[in-house]
Amino acid sequence: MKKHNFYAGPSILSQYTIKNTADAVINFADMGLSLLEISHRSKEFQAVMDEAQQLVKELLEVPEGYSVLFLGGGASLQFCMIPFNLLKKKAAYLDTGTWAHNAIKEARIFGDVDVVGSSEADGYTYIPKFEVPDDVDYFHYTSNNTIYGTEMRYDPDVKVPMVADMSSDIFSRPVDVAKYDAIYAGAQKNLAPAGVTIIIVKDEALGHVDRVIPTMLDYRTHVKKGSMFNTPPVLPIFSALQTLRLYKEMGGVKVLEKLDLDKAGKLYEAIDSSRMFTGTVTNPADRSIMNVCFVMKPEYKELEPEFIKFAGERGIVGIKGHRSVGGFRASLYNALPMESVDALVEAMADFQKKH
Amino acid sequence: MKKHNFYAGPSILSQYTIKNTADAVINFADMGLSLLEISHRSKEFQAVMDEAQQLVKELLEVPEGYSVLFLGGGASLQFCMIPFNLLKKKAAYLDTGTWAHNAIKEARIFGDVDVVGSSEADGYTYIPKFEVPDDVDYFHYTSNNTIYGTEMRYDPDVKVPMVADMSSDIFSRPVDVAKYDAIYAGAQKNLAPAGVTIIIVKDEALGHVDRVIPTMLDYRTHVKKGSMFNTPPVLPIFSALQTLRLYKEMGGVKVLEKLDLDKAGKLYEAIDSSRMFTGTVTNPADRSIMNVCFVMKPEYKELEPEFIKFAGERGIVGIKGHRSVGGFRASLYNALPMESVDALVEAMADFQKKH
Repeated sequence: MKKHNFYAGPSILSQYTIKNTADAVINFADMGLSLLEISHRSKEFQAVMDEAQQLVKELLEVPEGYSVLFLGGGASLQFCMIPFNLLKKKAAYLDTGTWAHNAIKEARIFGDVDVVGSSEADGYTYIPKFEVPDDVDYFHYTSNNTIYGTEMRYDPDVKVPMVADMSSDIFSRPVDVAKYDAIYAGAQKNLAPAGVTIIIVKDEALGHVDRVIPTMLDYRTHVKKGSMFNTPPVLPIFSALQTLRLYKEMGGVKVLEKLDLDKAGKLYEAIDSSRMFTGTVTNPADRSIMNVCFVMKPEYKELEPEFIKFAGERGIVGIKGHRSVGGFRASLYNALPMESVDALVEAMADFQKKH
Repeated sequence: MKKHNFYAGPSILSQYTIKNTADAVINFADMGLSLLEISHRSKEFQAVMDEAQQLVKELLEVPEGYSVLFLGGGASLQFCMIPFNLLKKKAAYLDTGTWAHNAIKEARIFGDVDVVGSSEADGYTYIPKFEVPDDVDYFHYTSNNTIYGTEMRYDPDVKVPMVADMSSDIFSRPVDVAKYDAIYAGAQKNLAPAGVTIIIVKDEALGHVDRVIPTMLDYRTHVKKGSMFNTPPVLPIFSALQTLRLYKEMGGVKVLEKLDLDKAGKLYEAIDSSRMFTGTVTNPADRSIMNVCFVMKPEYKELEPEFIKFAGERGIVGIKGHRSVGGFRASLYNALPMESVDALVEAMADFQKKH
């Protein structure tokens, strides 16, 4: 049975990426060797790294003066690398969910943190209002909150450089990179399998802190060596390149954005017009187009496990909500086809007819 | 043409590991989903993680009270994580090559470092004599020096806990783990594709430093969460499990050691009995069984590039020596079959006949 993969991450990748990766695991670049066992210093892998960096720049229209890195360790490692490299005295952070919260915790090790807004007390069900003071080194926000289904689908207007964790919505819209000192994203949502994180960093923003930075945590180390200071996560980078090629072929991030808006539009419409389901995000403008969080209305609440089973019988997997929200979460990452949204919407309708 | 893969790392993996990984990239654990797109929180991946940790414990006879972690970021990240977590005042380090040197550099950020021995002045061509004082927090050494072809094939007898970087020779001999506070190893030599590092850490050794450790760099974070605090590098861990299963099936590390000794023995014999080639390690007892470094004698020196070409025509790849040593380096990791050593030895003999 065809599976409809709604997992929040690691999550669905295109068949193009999957197929090319499987082929390369057997024979990479016609070398007669597996992608798993080739030197990262081979000219064949260097070409992969170069093209992947170039395509990130092209797709996001990254201006001159920025470097693109592909590092291991996960986006969670960036929570400390960002302040290690960029926090001189004080930074502003917006608290919009679990990951934002974790990023704030790490930043506090390195300096003052001004939490300019938080929706924690309301279960992170909306993006809080905020104002960023002019005297901070940077403003950090999380563009999409995977767990709570909220998203900031724009580049905020503030008077300081920004840093954004775009782990779960990178490549779903154009970004004005010039407004940022750094953008980082764990690749395991819209790009590649788990194990690599993209960092887009402004070269000029580096080297202004007083502290000693361990070599591997210093972005300059990786910038200087073209992201090849040490052995990079070869396979995840190869897979990322496949996805990036596909994105370019499809027409770039504006095309992806349109597709994503259509998918999310259809699912939110089904939720909003339903007598049984309801969205969890309280401000519709803050709804994520990547992670759609919804629950059953109080009178149907006890049917939630039954719906997960019902949907599962149709090949719909990964829709169980995060334990801190409950209910359902349908992740509609770039690789998810409209066909899967249709299957979910149909399952919702059929389930309602039954009850 | 069949390739004989002598790369130093990432390097040859067994066909068993490669084939099973390629299959799982198409369909993992009969889930109808790719290994690239499944949740690390799925019970199917949790089973992979659990078995991989268990097999490391079994193969290396890890005593109670130790945890096994699979982290991203590379062994180079461990150069700072080790002192972050374990260096209270002073540590002893042995300087046996580039990686040892890099580890020393990072440790100095965190405390006093007593370099108890170094062969740097002699181009790292042997393992220096050393004595470890009793008043250090730990003694750190690099068991195998990939670039220089030297190896410490034993667990040193010192009066303090040890920490070892076993990146390039783990699973090539039994290890007395009880002597160590931590053992770490980038997996891309004897285990898995690049992107994951194994850490075997003594639980009781943690929590004794005064400094604040960023969450992701604190081993306790990962110990507490069974190496699943954040999204782990899923595919490299799956591949590691395949290799570990194979190692168990083959009979464990003692069997692997015997095979490795036989392979290295044959190649060193060919070098020592040759009129054209000579080993670069000055003390035969320090010769690595993982990375065999050799050059052409002065009178044949200019033939080195020709031999690389000559061997390449027979499918022999990856034998170019590191630029800091020159000549040749044949890496004989666990997955390399004797047949490949035979091919290299034959190429050496045939080349000598020609000249």
